[in-house]
Amino acid sequence: MKCISCQEDYDARDAGTCKECYMEANETEEELKREIDDLKSKVAFLKFSPRSLHPIPFSDVVLLASDDPSSSSSSGPSVPAHKAVLASRSPVFRAMLENEMEESLSGTIKIGEVSYDALRAFVNYLYTAEACLDEEMACHLLILAEKYQVQHLKDYCQMYLVSKLNWDNSIVSYTFAHQHNAKRIVDAALALITENMDKLTTREEYMELVQKDPRLVVQVYEAYLSKQINTAAQKDSAGRAGLEVKPPNGDHVLY
Amino acid sequence: MKCISCQEDYDARDAGTCKECYMEANETEEELKREIDDLKSKVAFLKFSPRSLHPIPFSDVVLLASDDPSSSSSSGPSVPAHKAVLASRSPVFRAMLENEMEESLSGTIKIGEVSYDALRAFVNYLYTAEACLDEEMACHLLILAEKYQVQHLKDYCQMYLVSKLNWDNSIVSYTFAHQHNAKRIVDAALALITENMDKLTTREEYMELVQKDPRLVVQVYEAYLSKQINTAAQKDSAGRAGLEVKPPNGDHVLY
Repeated sequence: MKCISCQEDYDARDAGTCKECYMEANETEEELKREIDDLKSKVAFLKFSPRSLHPIPFSDVVLLASDDPSSSSSSGPSVPAHKAVLASRSPVFRAMLENEMEESLSGTIKIGEVSYDALRAFVNYLYTAEACLDEEMACHLLILAEKYQVQHLKDYCQMYLVSKLNWDNSIVSYTFAHQHNAKRIVDAALALITENMDKLTTREEYMELVQKDPRLVVQVYEAYLSKQINTAAQKDSAGRAGLEVKPPNGDHVLY
Repeated sequence: MKCISCQEDYDARDAGTCKECYMEANETEEELKREIDDLKSKVAFLKFSPRSLHPIPFSDVVLLASDDPSSSSSSGPSVPAHKAVLASRSPVFRAMLENEMEESLSGTIKIGEVSYDALRAFVNYLYTAEACLDEEMACHLLILAEKYQVQHLKDYCQMYLVSKLNWDNSIVSYTFAHQHNAKRIVDAALALITENMDKLTTREEYMELVQKDPRLVVQVYEAYLSKQINTAAQKDSAGRAGLEVKPPNGDHVLY
């Protein structure tokens, strides 16, 4: 037969679908692509375009970055924004601004322990759902997203950081993720660490973590143990199933 | 062979794809679905949630509907909004609000010839990219979208109204679409009308249009003529191609 898609000849062993199912799948693909186009144009419509303008029109609040938590001095120019946008994206900003707290009355929100660049990227994300990430920026934005409960940004940073996980950064990432309640990274890092337990105890970061936060180390061992028990149970049930399917004398006997 | 998708047997004549292409198509579908999920969550993030709250927090402008264009009295309560959102979605609002015109200074934008319900739906669309349409509402929103240059909403209304086109409403829709520069509806209505030319001249709406705006009627006849010429040319070239492929004596002779 000839494949309708790649036009190559194939034999019965390599058969995929019948013509009808191929046509249906093709239609489904077209429909999905149309849905993507619709959604993309919705995103383009809902994004705020004037973030690139200076000054930001109709701004009614500014955010100030402060690198040093003990000082209230700003470490860069302020980032103008709109109360309505901040309140719509973050329940923390909403509570802060709606309840006539200091920030609402003064029109200035001070954000501690953050650089001007990270703050600007954070505010920009609230307007556009877009950010240009590297590992450092993803960590900064994850911290802000957690603090101001911007779940969409937190998911985005977690996905990025999980994609950058490797054995070298796994322990540091695991510790960081625990501090900032980033469960997806915790799970992915644990999976990676428990696959390499033979190399774990020689790592410098491991020894540091035992000193600094032994409870986190305990969780690694607990995850490892639980993985071992699961694997053993699976092997066991696969073994039983195997014996059950092919009993030596034709009877269903479980060994 | 057995179809991997529907599990039915089929013969070589009904062969669709080989297994490899089936697997690839499956992966593509999964990827498209993941992209759709990502985009949907982006749309949910970018939409303004607090439109349902009363009062709208941090509103700095109100819109007033006025049914009667000769009077400036409002025909319903005002619709609160944010200058930043209006300016981001509509270049007309942006110019109006940024240039310290009356509307910007007073914080009130009067919208003539529109009902309160339509105005509320219009403003709601600017915040959410969503509207609940029937034919009447789609017409009202298309007019507002055209007036304030909100292309995304105009496309949405046009798509809806094209889906509702039929022979009964085709002439009215054609006239309406011309008045409001809705090219997609004009094209779709013309296609429908020129398919039913034998019934056209007996229609009451036709006779009215000849009286009121004969240029629009001329355009219908021009479209019909152009369609006829195209069809004739296609038939002609198909006829020639047919003769060329099967010449009676095996020679390539064009008749």
